[in-house]
Amino acid sequence: MVLKLLASCLFICLVYVPLAVARIRYHKWDVKYELKSPDCYKKLVITINGGSPGPTIFAQQGDTIIVEVTNKLFTDGVTIHWHGIQQFGTPWSDGRGGVTQCPIVPGDTFKYEFKVERAGTYLYHAHYGMQRDAGLYGSIQVSLPDGVSEPFAYDYDRSIILDDWYHKSISEQAVGLSSIPFVWVGEPQSLLIQGKGKFDCSSVPSPAGVCNVSNPECSPYSITVIPGKIYRLRVASLTSLSSLSFQIEGHDMTVVEADGHYVEPFVVKNLFIYSGETYSVLIKADQEPSRNYWMTTNVVSRPPNTTNGLAILNYYPNHPLQSPTTVPPHGPIWNDTAPRFAQSLAIKARQGFILAPPPTSDRVIVFLNTQNLVNGYFHWSVNNVSYTVPDTPFLIALKLKLGHVFDQTPPPNGYDFVNYDIYNVAKNKNGTTSNGIYRLDFKTTVDIILQNANTMTPNNSETHAWHLHGHDFWVLGYGTGKFDMYKDPKNYNLVNPIMKNTVPLHPYGWTALRFKADNPGVWAFHCHIEPHLFTGMGVVFEEGIDKVGDLPSSIMGCGRTRGFGRRP
Amino acid sequence: MVLKLLASCLFICLVYVPLAVARIRYHKWDVKYELKSPDCYKKLVITINGGSPGPTIFAQQGDTIIVEVTNKLFTDGVTIHWHGIQQFGTPWSDGRGGVTQCPIVPGDTFKYEFKVERAGTYLYHAHYGMQRDAGLYGSIQVSLPDGVSEPFAYDYDRSIILDDWYHKSISEQAVGLSSIPFVWVGEPQSLLIQGKGKFDCSSVPSPAGVCNVSNPECSPYSITVIPGKIYRLRVASLTSLSSLSFQIEGHDMTVVEADGHYVEPFVVKNLFIYSGETYSVLIKADQEPSRNYWMTTNVVSRPPNTTNGLAILNYYPNHPLQSPTTVPPHGPIWNDTAPRFAQSLAIKARQGFILAPPPTSDRVIVFLNTQNLVNGYFHWSVNNVSYTVPDTPFLIALKLKLGHVFDQTPPPNGYDFVNYDIYNVAKNKNGTTSNGIYRLDFKTTVDIILQNANTMTPNNSETHAWHLHGHDFWVLGYGTGKFDMYKDPKNYNLVNPIMKNTVPLHPYGWTALRFKADNPGVWAFHCHIEPHLFTGMGVVFEEGIDKVGDLPSSIMGCGRTRGFGRRP
Repeated sequence: MVLKLLASCLFICLVYVPLAVARIRYHKWDVKYELKSPDCYKKLVITINGGSPGPTIFAQQGDTIIVEVTNKLFTDGVTIHWHGIQQFGTPWSDGRGGVTQCPIVPGDTFKYEFKVERAGTYLYHAHYGMQRDAGLYGSIQVSLPDGVSEPFAYDYDRSIILDDWYHKSISEQAVGLSSIPFVWVGEPQSLLIQGKGKFDCSSVPSPAGVCNVSNPECSPYSITVIPGKIYRLRVASLTSLSSLSFQIEGHDMTVVEADGHYVEPFVVKNLFIYSGETYSVLIKADQEPSRNYWMTTNVVSRPPNTTNGLAILNYYPNHPLQSPTTVPPHGPIWNDTAPRFAQSLAIKARQGFILAPPPTSDRVIVFLNTQNLVNGYFHWSVNNVSYTVPDTPFLIALKLKLGHVFDQTPPPNGYDFVNYDIYNVAKNKNGTTSNGIYRLDFKTTVDIILQNANTMTPNNSETHAWHLHGHDFWVLGYGTGKFDMYKDPKNYNLVNPIMKNTVPLHPYGWTALRFKADNPGVWAFHCHIEPHLFTGMGVVFEEGIDKVGDLPSSIMGCGRTRGFGRRP
Repeated sequence: MVLKLLASCLFICLVYVPLAVARIRYHKWDVKYELKSPDCYKKLVITINGGSPGPTIFAQQGDTIIVEVTNKLFTDGVTIHWHGIQQFGTPWSDGRGGVTQCPIVPGDTFKYEFKVERAGTYLYHAHYGMQRDAGLYGSIQVSLPDGVSEPFAYDYDRSIILDDWYHKSISEQAVGLSSIPFVWVGEPQSLLIQGKGKFDCSSVPSPAGVCNVSNPECSPYSITVIPGKIYRLRVASLTSLSSLSFQIEGHDMTVVEADGHYVEPFVVKNLFIYSGETYSVLIKADQEPSRNYWMTTNVVSRPPNTTNGLAILNYYPNHPLQSPTTVPPHGPIWNDTAPRFAQSLAIKARQGFILAPPPTSDRVIVFLNTQNLVNGYFHWSVNNVSYTVPDTPFLIALKLKLGHVFDQTPPPNGYDFVNYDIYNVAKNKNGTTSNGIYRLDFKTTVDIILQNANTMTPNNSETHAWHLHGHDFWVLGYGTGKFDMYKDPKNYNLVNPIMKNTVPLHPYGWTALRFKADNPGVWAFHCHIEPHLFTGMGVVFEEGIDKVGDLPSSIMGCGRTRGFGRRP
């Protein structure tokens, strides 16, 4: 009897106590193709356990997340990136195909295992080819440790992911992007909110059964709220192309979190959000409760050719799908850059939660964002160099010292800032391709200046959304025109800069970032716009490769790592 | 001067003389997706060096063929099977994904290297998922050694591959086949002759630019002949589903070769051809030379719902695309099994070229061809067991003794032939799946009885086309009804049976084969109808695995061979 009691105690100690401190959150996912109609138009979607978006991962700060991904596609490999998770000590779990691992081939199961070190709102998505745009994505919500509270009050927590949606298959999009003549993906056919949109089936001819506006799969997404309560709404964007504005009819939004960091609160009617960003906003259900309200998204920064995205804020006990009779808010005009710039500037770290940046940096890298022609093919580039994915992942090539499996010449640290005219089409549009990487001295502080410019189209400069793997960076400043490396750094915000993992670069503008190269591994830094990345808009950083632990053999199997590693 | 002459002699001896004996035929192929309109309807096609069909491989008996395949698809793996090539000593080059190798992942280059031991007409095609149906296929023509002649005379040699063509992507077809409710691929949208067909664009709505009957890509294929000359026409079929009849207006065809073996010549007006078969026919351009003549294909053995395939036999000097004003020959009626049966029986080995079969066999395996439900999913099976592809290729698993990576229970050697009613829908439609294999004693002689039956549809039995990797087999007999293992073997043709690698199984019939298990390796034997194979209609044989040489590490990288093999 006493022994039994002791055994029980031991069991409780071993199982329950450790669980309360740092749990393992185990998930088993099947990735497969399914025919779905997210916007009423039936096409192949890559699902996780039958859904797109996939299941939300809930965890607590300090937990370990294990996701066993089984590839049930037919011939496609797949990898999954955990967007915003820094992967300290597990760089092989970052999920960028060609950088940190070989693709998971059909039939195989790959185990992603990593710690979530920081509470906040994160994402996951496919990061191989253009598979994110086929619907393989979802949310990660990391809560604070027990006994710790957010510095703002709310009653309930909800989340949505915004997306844009194309009817052409990702393979067909990719073929167009890599062809002569170049075939651009064009504007999306619809905007999705939490995987649901509405395409006007009468607008194009389609075979019988392909487009059906009464398909329940494309009924609008609806969030039910209780009148009087405050909601934390986690809003994320994983658009392929579009920069968006998000708004809720009749409700102001107080921005309190960005990419996992607390924001000094500010109120917006329109939340601008770029692909790869996450925000938490607080909304109070304080409007007339007898009706529902529209939530809408609309395209900004490009001439829109897509119907606004629609969802419903449902005041309980009205029917969740009762459409408001009002006109949905259409959001701000697409080509007014000023309010977007202003929102970027408004995002500061919250008082009491400021992580001070190092006052100086050890290295400055300038990335001029360019469009180029390489042997007649269209490319997006930085400093006129367009990135290509090598067949052997960098992490393995570097750690195992496989030699010249990628270009050993470092890509350029900057551009000809004296002579380059960022306001006009470049005189020489020709660029080059490279799979060379930037090697950063371990634990140094690096500044990145993203410099926008005119594209190959006269009087056009596009918005980009740059995402860094493995780190958060401080956003030191935004400006318009050509960055002046003597004057502009004097105006850096070193007092309360926000930390983020994804940041916009506005048309004809610059964005200045700082980060510490303190995470041993190999990390992608790229424009989060999928066709931009696909055509080469990204770079790769290496830091502290000698401090990376033993690589799991499961990440191998391609390039020079085919049949490489452990013996039978 | 003398030295120079000697050096030249030596050079000639070393280079030219060996080349004349057994050359290396080197090919470098890029496999990629392209938008093509083979039947006027634009869709994604998998091309080799820009074409579908891919380049014809020309070789001489005894040559070594090297094909370096670079996978330039975006996220899809790929493998290529060399159909009819026996791969003695190189079983890892057979190209069946999941059986003999891991898929070649995007960016990787894989070297196929094998000898062509026998003159004749062969094929190559993708053999991973349903990729063959996306257009990755072509011809292999192996000529006789110098100084040896064919036992028939002809002036010129031409070849065509027949195909059927679907507008849905192979992924969408595969999703349908593996869904509940089951979505059958249906009848093809068109029939292609050497990659060209004609779809009636007005028959279905499609977005602008997708279907265009005046696209030159879908102008009919034309073979130019000189009046009076004799042509050897190599006709092959790589249809996804359809059994075909092929005919040339006004021209008889003399069948002289089948699957690389000489046939005792016979004359046909309609050549029946099943997926995976190759034939050579002789035709004489002896008709009125002022006009062209139609070549057509039409579907047999299924209720056709596809316009006949059309090509042009062009009498020089008429314009190659001048359409004959005559009505194209429409071919035989689809549901008359008798002439198809008769053609099968007519194909005998040519006198003087008979390879005698062993008079008896060591083992008989009976394969009842069945349709089944497995957990509600639709499957094709043999003996009610539906084959599934394991994640670790059998060849590697067996050679490296990786243990229980596949089902260790041998699949059944036969079925309940006493009680099973082949003329009616099975009382119990339920089957099972297995990735178990048949292990054959090395150098034994094996008989295979393919037994057809009613499908799950009343009064329906389908035509199948069974293809064996790694061997040719003797075709000992065909019959109708249930094979009687006491009586029917007495009627086996042991005198002049043809050897083939692909053979039809007629509705409600049986086909008896014999082969020697003398090729060390692991070999697929399956129905060549792609949606039948995809849903499980196949088995795998192992023989002499201990005699297989060291496996190249390049075939590894999936399943238990991920990061497996040689060390850095």
